[in-house]
Amino acid sequence: MNKTVGEIGEFGLIERIKKIIPQADRKDIFCGIGDDTAIIKISPKKWLLATCDIQIEDVHFRLKHSTPRQLGSRAMAVNLSDIASMGGTPTYALVSMGLPPDFKVKQFDGIFKGMGDELNKYSALIIGGNLAHTSDKLVLDIFLMGEVSPDSILLRSSAQPGDRIFVTGQLGASAAGYHVLEKFEKNYPEEYRHFVEAHLQPTAKVEAGKQIAQSGYATAMIDLSDGIASDLRHICDSSGVGAEILEKGIPYPDKIDDIAKAVSKSKLDLSLHGGEDYELLFTMKPDTPSEIIEQIATETKTEVTEIGKVLTKEAGYTLVTADNNRQTLQPKGWDHFG
Amino acid sequence: MNKTVGEIGEFGLIERIKKIIPQADRKDIFCGIGDDTAIIKISPKKWLLATCDIQIEDVHFRLKHSTPRQLGSRAMAVNLSDIASMGGTPTYALVSMGLPPDFKVKQFDGIFKGMGDELNKYSALIIGGNLAHTSDKLVLDIFLMGEVSPDSILLRSSAQPGDRIFVTGQLGASAAGYHVLEKFEKNYPEEYRHFVEAHLQPTAKVEAGKQIAQSGYATAMIDLSDGIASDLRHICDSSGVGAEILEKGIPYPDKIDDIAKAVSKSKLDLSLHGGEDYELLFTMKPDTPSEIIEQIATETKTEVTEIGKVLTKEAGYTLVTADNNRQTLQPKGWDHFG
Repeated sequence: MNKTVGEIGEFGLIERIKKIIPQADRKDIFCGIGDDTAIIKISPKKWLLATCDIQIEDVHFRLKHSTPRQLGSRAMAVNLSDIASMGGTPTYALVSMGLPPDFKVKQFDGIFKGMGDELNKYSALIIGGNLAHTSDKLVLDIFLMGEVSPDSILLRSSAQPGDRIFVTGQLGASAAGYHVLEKFEKNYPEEYRHFVEAHLQPTAKVEAGKQIAQSGYATAMIDLSDGIASDLRHICDSSGVGAEILEKGIPYPDKIDDIAKAVSKSKLDLSLHGGEDYELLFTMKPDTPSEIIEQIATETKTEVTEIGKVLTKEAGYTLVTADNNRQTLQPKGWDHFG
Repeated sequence: MNKTVGEIGEFGLIERIKKIIPQADRKDIFCGIGDDTAIIKISPKKWLLATCDIQIEDVHFRLKHSTPRQLGSRAMAVNLSDIASMGGTPTYALVSMGLPPDFKVKQFDGIFKGMGDELNKYSALIIGGNLAHTSDKLVLDIFLMGEVSPDSILLRSSAQPGDRIFVTGQLGASAAGYHVLEKFEKNYPEEYRHFVEAHLQPTAKVEAGKQIAQSGYATAMIDLSDGIASDLRHICDSSGVGAEILEKGIPYPDKIDDIAKAVSKSKLDLSLHGGEDYELLFTMKPDTPSEIIEQIATETKTEVTEIGKVLTKEAGYTLVTADNNRQTLQPKGWDHFG
């Protein structure tokens, strides 16, 4: 056994950790290794959420593409999105940073301002962290805590056949923004600004997540970090169900055809597999009144779109194309070592 | 203002963060940015501790020096030591890791086993984390939580003139171990094994920390990460006091003269400034009965040595040499960008 981590891949590594660090018999842990967010039962009425996300220069971001403030804001939003997907409220963050010695103090300040901007929306706060030096690349690792009431928590594992599938926002905008930046750098055409903003400054759907979780009709939720084809698959695998997505239902951003054409992909491909939209994907009971959906959309000023249905596991994992063909939905998972 | 982070240094950067992220008016935070461990008042009887420490290959550790299991164990001990210095009990950890794709799975497993070994001593548990790839260096960032009773918490800021100063363990062993490894690599003489072990596998003094904090006589505590000359200075600055350390009182490890000679330093220098011993430095009220100290030492099987006294701020920050001269104690702080 002399394999590399690249060969075994992210999900293989997580399985190994689960074996080395067994936790099934711990009654204080509601959700441990393998989920995006850990859940600790600290008190009967309030559970603690904890998540982290490490971002490395030229792997997860490029300094030439964004201002330091955007970079900080984005790194925090990625973590906030994990808390949002549990229906939780963010509370406290710790920040670890590895910095090359020639990194500018002004940029350093900007990153912290950006992280603060995002947390301030929820009265959450950076309360500590750690600074170290690196030889050349910037490393930014955020640990974010949150809280949630045990009776409104939403997991990936409770979707049922017949449930309706919804997403917030639009799909594929961040992937399109990445391609716009790669092609035009900072001199992109104004008509593509919404793509660039979706990529550089996503907004975590914290309020929407809370309202969805508290609606009494939601059955499962996840945030869209890897693309809907992969993220819906996580819900299906955890819940032991299948699903179908309707191509006709996908909320495409304006002008995505332009970008799809320029990079020789279909807009469907960008939307299903693009990733990093940090929208919410959630399932609702079949009898959910339409007023409930409208209320969530209106009160949180969030677009909400129905895009498919939960099926039995036997019925498979399917995309229903615009011309009504059924094809297997391929989860081209974003394996971080792939 | 176009300075670099290297020019402004770690402590300058922390001051900047405090200005960007103000937190003085938050009643839920007992201890925030600037301390090694944040303290959150989650309930009247139990406060939450949170700390993190990022370790980067060839900055904080060398893979050639240690086994993966030692590396994991050490990285966790460094965090446990921060919880120990508050008199706290460790509870949950999240682990962020950046891995080059050709990193061996066997090594990966070893690091997690080592981290688990340390946490198992306290029934603490890794409950989540995040994996990413890096181009070449290993990055290991641990976020550790703990808990403490509000009435037994010990800070840096409450030392009083007249208090007696103690340390656990011996000083300078880790620094000596580093030099042994640099010189001999893995083929070091058996008589220097205790140095190498102190460097590669320090043990956080969690039990001693709790007993010291609960003794009713302790006034301030910190863990020794940067060398006693720097760490005692943190207590003095936070408490608004001075101090004197007696050279005669320093608990030197056996054979440290050999290493000091080989690297052309004095053993005093190694012990005062070497750093990374992860012992506890604490102050006790003047009238502390000697039975209390003996009890802590016996029950936690920890060497405890009195090494000096807290003075007024005006009396300065002093080393009393073996021949009874008084000289200023220089805090050669381990600035992570120095």
